[in-house]
Amino acid sequence: MTAATPIGEFEIIERFFASLGARRGDVVLGVGDDGAILTPRAGCELVVVTDTLIEGRHFPAASPPASVGHRALAVNLSDIAAMGAEPAWALLALTLPRADPAWLAEFARGFGTLAQSAGVALVGGDTTSGPLSMTVTVLGQLPAGTALRRNGARAGDVLFVSGTPGDAARGLQHDIMAQAGTASIAGDAATRVDALRQRFRYPMPRLQLGMGLRGIASACIDVSDGLAADAGKIAAASGCGVSIDVQSLPLSTALLQDAGEAQARDLALCGGDDYELCFAVPAAQLALLAQRLPVAAHPYQRIGVMTAAPGMQLHVAGQRIELPVTGFDHFR
Amino acid sequence: MTAATPIGEFEIIERFFASLGARRGDVVLGVGDDGAILTPRAGCELVVVTDTLIEGRHFPAASPPASVGHRALAVNLSDIAAMGAEPAWALLALTLPRADPAWLAEFARGFGTLAQSAGVALVGGDTTSGPLSMTVTVLGQLPAGTALRRNGARAGDVLFVSGTPGDAARGLQHDIMAQAGTASIAGDAATRVDALRQRFRYPMPRLQLGMGLRGIASACIDVSDGLAADAGKIAAASGCGVSIDVQSLPLSTALLQDAGEAQARDLALCGGDDYELCFAVPAAQLALLAQRLPVAAHPYQRIGVMTAAPGMQLHVAGQRIELPVTGFDHFR
Repeated sequence: MTAATPIGEFEIIERFFASLGARRGDVVLGVGDDGAILTPRAGCELVVVTDTLIEGRHFPAASPPASVGHRALAVNLSDIAAMGAEPAWALLALTLPRADPAWLAEFARGFGTLAQSAGVALVGGDTTSGPLSMTVTVLGQLPAGTALRRNGARAGDVLFVSGTPGDAARGLQHDIMAQAGTASIAGDAATRVDALRQRFRYPMPRLQLGMGLRGIASACIDVSDGLAADAGKIAAASGCGVSIDVQSLPLSTALLQDAGEAQARDLALCGGDDYELCFAVPAAQLALLAQRLPVAAHPYQRIGVMTAAPGMQLHVAGQRIELPVTGFDHFR
Repeated sequence: MTAATPIGEFEIIERFFASLGARRGDVVLGVGDDGAILTPRAGCELVVVTDTLIEGRHFPAASPPASVGHRALAVNLSDIAAMGAEPAWALLALTLPRADPAWLAEFARGFGTLAQSAGVALVGGDTTSGPLSMTVTVLGQLPAGTALRRNGARAGDVLFVSGTPGDAARGLQHDIMAQAGTASIAGDAATRVDALRQRFRYPMPRLQLGMGLRGIASACIDVSDGLAADAGKIAAASGCGVSIDVQSLPLSTALLQDAGEAQARDLALCGGDDYELCFAVPAAQLALLAQRLPVAAHPYQRIGVMTAAPGMQLHVAGQRIELPVTGFDHFR
């Protein structure tokens, strides 16, 4: 953050956050009072999620502020997507070391552009002074009884993942190398690296896919801690196991060319920060899946199957292999 | 926080936060999935609030963890009260420097005891590693169209405040003096100081009062930044002014005896951290106020009147005085 004329807390809210994101007719009262007043849709259940991002932990220090704003909302929208809900309203609790208008404008642009495209209105929040971090809460809605959960998978269900996991983790590695000054890349390689870095900086939550999976998927989770760890959570919550065919992982060309096949697979399994959806579908629903959610419109790929035996099995060419590392835990 | 055996992120959630607060039939799915699933009451609007507390900024370092847990929820419930809503569900985003089970148990006890008494279920959250801070989001409900706002006051409306403002600010001063080792107090004075410190550590949000004021108050705000600053916000939002009779401020005996009258008034006007309600009532509603909310059950006092002329006037024995200091702004 660069030095700039300091501005006050109320001016920050007024200038940058008073009317961010989509205009929605169901917002009776937005930013500016003790609380927001919202009209939930009749017959719907609410889905509520919250996630914190801390500088130096969830994103590198000196990240582009537009990326920080985008990610603060995106990681929450990804949780909304994993529940199959339609997002509606967000709250932003922002802690800043100082009030830099240029930084705030870019942060608000990143947050607001994604909010607008997702149909989300920013309706409240809090602004405090301290080490850079932010907690976003998003509220979504869905018809009662249709939410996707982690615990509904059964042995025999087919496991899928959306997008190309591993890209974001590789992009973050490049971000860190670039900051350390150890990277010197040009030409096609630089284009690939830029593409991978964008995947970390601007993940796109799979909202349409999540909503489309209602009534089809038996379980769903968003991939934030690494595909293997998150698939394992579906298995554990569902009281079954999971077998993943590592050769079927959807690896991007950029990742394969940049990292090589072995490391690309490790990153796809264990990298984290993908914000893709991992979901299980019963055999009886596979035809409906293909019909309602054509792969051309919603990229996802079959990567394995739920098993009766608990635990996780990884296979390469029919041979069982061991998981390279485990998922992320903030306190271990 | 004391040293202790470290525990993991998922164990923290499972041990301390999986089922905190009230059991509610409208919680379809609580802690443990990507999001919580909730059933809003038919015909109701939602009220949503969020507030962040940071160690060393919103509460002293080494505060009792039960107080930190209580306050993290209380400051949000106070916002819910100021809107006239009935609280239902909370989310807790907790950032911890380390995972100390003894600290977490006390923090959860403070949070959980207040949640239970307020009928609030903890339904989700996030746990991350970093400097101690927490962002709580609370969702409440009220019949559509009945919310209290800041902007409905009109010239001639009578202004009230609940409780005894200033106590918490004095209690915080004593906390800071005790930590600095400059305090040596015994006997009756010690009892008074303890009482004041408790007012800072365990503020009780005025939920019943807030709900009772629906249909009576023309405007309401919770007093967190200092009574004068917050009354000024009602006036500014309502496009009118406010006149406060300083001699009518409800000062507690403990505050008067401990701080003396002059400082007690300053603290009551500008101290902050009271989490009382300040509200305006049209003359035509005063009889209903007294009938529905008897002062014996819901302590509040008349302290002034809304005026046609904008700005704030403070009076002592008919003489106009100046405000000693202004309200708190995190970035000035």
